[in-house]
Amino acid sequence: MFRLTKTTGALAALMLATPAMAQEATPQIPDEIGFILNTFMFLVMGFLVMWMGAGFSMLEAGLVRSKNVTMQLTKNIGLVGIASIMYYLVGYNLMYPGDAWTVDGIIGAFATTSLEPVGVGAADVDLTYASVGSDFFFQLMFAAATASIVSGALAERIKLWPFLIFTTVLVAFIYPIQASWKWGGGFLDEAGFLDFAGSTVVHSVGGWAALAGAIILGARLGKYKNGKVIPFMGSNLPLATLGTFILWMGWFGFNGGSQLYMNTTGNVADISRIFANTNAAAAGGAIAALFATQLFYKKPDLTMMLNGALAGLVSITAEPLTPGLGQASMIGAVGGVIVVFAVPLLDKFKIDDVVGAIPVHLFAGIWGTMAVVFTNTDASFATQAYGIVVIGGFVFSVSLVLWMVLKLVLGIRVSAEAEINGLDMSELGMEGYPEFTNG
Amino acid sequence: MFRLTKTTGALAALMLATPAMAQEATPQIPDEIGFILNTFMFLVMGFLVMWMGAGFSMLEAGLVRSKNVTMQLTKNIGLVGIASIMYYLVGYNLMYPGDAWTVDGIIGAFATTSLEPVGVGAADVDLTYASVGSDFFFQLMFAAATASIVSGALAERIKLWPFLIFTTVLVAFIYPIQASWKWGGGFLDEAGFLDFAGSTVVHSVGGWAALAGAIILGARLGKYKNGKVIPFMGSNLPLATLGTFILWMGWFGFNGGSQLYMNTTGNVADISRIFANTNAAAAGGAIAALFATQLFYKKPDLTMMLNGALAGLVSITAEPLTPGLGQASMIGAVGGVIVVFAVPLLDKFKIDDVVGAIPVHLFAGIWGTMAVVFTNTDASFATQAYGIVVIGGFVFSVSLVLWMVLKLVLGIRVSAEAEINGLDMSELGMEGYPEFTNG
Amino acid sequence: MFRLTKTTGALAALMLATPAMAQEATPQIPDEIGFILNTFMFLVMGFLVMWMGAGFSMLEAGLVRSKNVTMQLTKNIGLVGIASIMYYLVGYNLMYPGDAWTVDGIIGAFATTSLEPVGVGAADVDLTYASVGSDFFFQLMFAAATASIVSGALAERIKLWPFLIFTTVLVAFIYPIQASWKWGGGFLDEAGFLDFAGSTVVHSVGGWAALAGAIILGARLGKYKNGKVIPFMGSNLPLATLGTFILWMGWFGFNGGSQLYMNTTGNVADISRIFANTNAAAAGGAIAALFATQLFYKKPDLTMMLNGALAGLVSITAEPLTPGLGQASMIGAVGGVIVVFAVPLLDKFKIDDVVGAIPVHLFAGIWGTMAVVFTNTDASFATQAYGIVVIGGFVFSVSLVLWMVLKLVLGIRVSAEAEINGLDMSELGMEGYPEFTNG
Repeated sequence: MFRLTKTTGALAALMLATPAMAQEATPQIPDEIGFILNTFMFLVMGFLVMWMGAGFSMLEAGLVRSKNVTMQLTKNIGLVGIASIMYYLVGYNLMYPGDAWTVDGIIGAFATTSLEPVGVGAADVDLTYASVGSDFFFQLMFAAATASIVSGALAERIKLWPFLIFTTVLVAFIYPIQASWKWGGGFLDEAGFLDFAGSTVVHSVGGWAALAGAIILGARLGKYKNGKVIPFMGSNLPLATLGTFILWMGWFGFNGGSQLYMNTTGNVADISRIFANTNAAAAGGAIAALFATQLFYKKPDLTMMLNGALAGLVSITAEPLTPGLGQASMIGAVGGVIVVFAVPLLDKFKIDDVVGAIPVHLFAGIWGTMAVVFTNTDASFATQAYGIVVIGGFVFSVSLVLWMVLKLVLGIRVSAEAEINGLDMSELGMEGYPEFTNG
Repeated sequence: MFRLTKTTGALAALMLATPAMAQEATPQIPDEIGFILNTFMFLVMGFLVMWMGAGFSMLEAGLVRSKNVTMQLTKNIGLVGIASIMYYLVGYNLMYPGDAWTVDGIIGAFATTSLEPVGVGAADVDLTYASVGSDFFFQLMFAAATASIVSGALAERIKLWPFLIFTTVLVAFIYPIQASWKWGGGFLDEAGFLDFAGSTVVHSVGGWAALAGAIILGARLGKYKNGKVIPFMGSNLPLATLGTFILWMGWFGFNGGSQLYMNTTGNVADISRIFANTNAAAAGGAIAALFATQLFYKKPDLTMMLNGALAGLVSITAEPLTPGLGQASMIGAVGGVIVVFAVPLLDKFKIDDVVGAIPVHLFAGIWGTMAVVFTNTDASFATQAYGIVVIGGFVFSVSLVLWMVLKLVLGIRVSAEAEINGLDMSELGMEGYPEFTNG
Repeated sequence: MFRLTKTTGALAALMLATPAMAQEATPQIPDEIGFILNTFMFLVMGFLVMWMGAGFSMLEAGLVRSKNVTMQLTKNIGLVGIASIMYYLVGYNLMYPGDAWTVDGIIGAFATTSLEPVGVGAADVDLTYASVGSDFFFQLMFAAATASIVSGALAERIKLWPFLIFTTVLVAFIYPIQASWKWGGGFLDEAGFLDFAGSTVVHSVGGWAALAGAIILGARLGKYKNGKVIPFMGSNLPLATLGTFILWMGWFGFNGGSQLYMNTTGNVADISRIFANTNAAAAGGAIAALFATQLFYKKPDLTMMLNGALAGLVSITAEPLTPGLGQASMIGAVGGVIVVFAVPLLDKFKIDDVVGAIPVHLFAGIWGTMAVVFTNTDASFATQAYGIVVIGGFVFSVSLVLWMVLKLVLGIRVSAEAEINGLDMSELGMEGYPEFTNG
């Protein structure tokens, strides 16, 4: 790995051949190559974001009690499946209605997604961007991530089917409608609201939906007793740690891919900045939570460190490009501190968030969205707040109504007996660790 | 992630320089760049397929009882090692005999694999394809995947060494010989048999070998008692779920890399279709299993959902390119339903498949191979069936003989006492979870 | 996956346009494309190396007893965070002082890392290499890996904070100083010492630091009793196996990315060789350990196979490019055998290495560094030994002093009572598996 510059001998043939060109700084990258690079970038970043689904599953399975593990896994596999299908059927075109680069010309917002034909020729794709299939694949994984956030907060007492119905509506309608306001070129984008990879558009949306659900659903039995908060310990911390590492890894795709282009030196250098900053923010969040828990609770708290890293990641997501490495660490560190204080705060209001999804995704998401003003001269405090409020108001109120309707029509909470016995045996008849638990 | 087309300013220098070229639709991508893109694509897709080895390990470790976990892990690490060595020694060249692009000219089918020399010049590689090393790396991981399928079905009663010997023969001979019939340009390829990424050539092969083994080996003690099927629960469902997510992720490499080329806009757009369709099929399989188990067993079954997702993936593997997203979901969904019904069917015949590998890889593999006719005008029902029967007949009969020989010569089954005590303590003297199990 | 060469029709436009060029073997790859390919290669390889952090965590969490699992996870998340921050603050520029390609010209060795500006133009980057951000991201993960090696060896009795302080010094100073001797173009590089991806520069460094720590810290209570070695079994072997698979996967990035360039056919073919060889060495190590434990202990030993695979990977890291596949397997196999014999050897000296990190990273690292002479005509036995001794002497002695200072000032070992009760409850008040363990 000796790194002093080798002579590559690759003086570009083109520059020799067309000396007139060499004087300009015109990029030497043909459109077709740019298209291949953009597309492959989306595929790599997309499988990283898909991998975050495993991260959420492991994190949540590790943080619930063992009697509810199978249910939590069922919800997570189920929501990834539903997200994949609903985003194809409705979400994608609703999010990018009448997008100029759809292959068939103008198509309605409610059409299902259609990809380029097999072996499509260079003349029939948008050579300045990437293939529709790669963009769809990447965007779909964001929709799925939004739904994953909800499942953790509402764990250990929500019924399976109402949760899956909520997921269906979230991925098909709630997420794409508000995302179109920013990423579909809608009014928030025109207003100058900045949210690079989705501190607000993805993470706070999951957080608001979770908060509405947690309020309607109520706390787990025995969680708040005589004014005291009873700690329910996660059953498998290695699993929760693994989930955090997976999310950390997947986030490189989440933020890096949001650059959307890798067809110039500037774009690929920007993606590099984003990778480095994303890592710095996660590190800042984890270390801040380490110090904060040592300082305030006298003992380092692993689950706070895990959530601190995740909060750092959420915090940098609104602007992973413009900060320097030190700034990125600090933005992440503030996210980590927010988590340490927000978890007991929620408990004060008896809002029972099993895995800490609301502090991590909603509170740190708001912080990250506001922090954009520190490193972007074209960002305004007021506009960032406006975007947060508009999206928050929409998502929270629609979610609240939807949870209430589900409660009235189907019921969203298992019986007290089922909850005490655990959802695994009572709802599914299948334990997560049938040979291990001590009863 | 605002996606309306940016002006990249990258009007290709070439087109300006050579206006005559611009009128043709000639690709602007130099061969050397195509070679780099193809090769790097194989490396990325290849590490994803390698990762599937971890997926199979975790799936199987999660679905066996805890007393057999160490043995299952030993088999999985062992088979990956053996596959890597045997495919280098024999398998690769046997699968692609006399391949024109081998560096040393014509080499015999039984020569070991030799890679291009270090720092090979552009003149000495096949610029229209990819480096031998990348192709070998990618193909090797397919051979290993085939062996992984077998280990799950025969878990909890087979001896270690006979299993590893079978793996050796499978990877060195059985897999490459039949694969050459299709992918080496052999008679099945000439007959028009279509199998893009290996529903038949990989998955059904593993399934047939497992079926032969399960028949010779017999069911686990106590599995079928007085006409009843006794359910043996998996010991660690989070691990099984993690394994499924790993396989789901790795499958993007499995199917996507099978496009073999990423050197044109058409090829990279095709890989995008394949990624999107692969995901859609997994989703279809998981959700179909969710509905089917709710409907028929009144309770959603997580392990069926996991196997449903895997069956969806196997189903789309024979043709992940030509279907639309809706078709891909449906093809996967049928795979998911097949699993739900095939698992009890096998039990009826007292074929004891511990993890459901035969329904997932063999039955869904057959389904996927037949389903090619729905989306390919050049596919015929008869030819697809012909390929399935030829490969199935070969692999099943050779495997059957091999298992019988191993049974006679070495014995393939542990003693009843060892089986009851668990293979971990009796065969290896090492428990998977020495502090957890309740005896 | 039918692989006979397709006609791509991609006769390079350039070659037609400039026939004079075609006669030379001049690469047709413009510098800007080379820059994008190099940079993206670093990002992909870098996230694989980052992923190794999860691998070390899972390996170590699986191999400690359950009462120390939370502490081991806390150390691992903590060290990744600290490494990320310290390598940015100090390590990177200390390792590559005065590097010509830093954006701001000559900067001091102790300046913090600064990345290229957002949207940097092609004229302002080193087009013959890769973006600073991508290089930093990749290099940082090597520093983190070095620290991960230490945490495993010292598990189950070291205090959290002294360990994290040691990590801070290791990543900020010890690792970068010695790495600059080789990879920063220092005196070991000038002497002709060869270490492609860091058998010595990374792995033995972690190993020496661990060895010094293990000596100062002493063995775990009850490990060596009346001249006998008491085996302490790992609590979760599936987790340890998962960790090994993660490391195996991540190693493709570790070794492959160390090629540093992907901008020519020769470079990408070399990366392919490295991937294939890295896999072959891991396989060789695992299988050698399988045979060795069967032969010498009469039973295959899973944890030895896992460490054998890792030792194979460490062994090939000094030279993953020049060996053929057979040589790579053999080099790895010797690494695997070394582990099988070194583990009891360390016990003879009462050096208590909980996960086998010293045999794997130090002993196999030395072996791999020496093995370079077999496949490199420009390597000399003496120079390789010289590099090993210089780096080993420096790292071991500095580490020894640092551990002694930490012992005197803070104390590095938990109390006997805390050790017996487990570090999780005594130091952190949080169990890894609160519902599972039998007390």
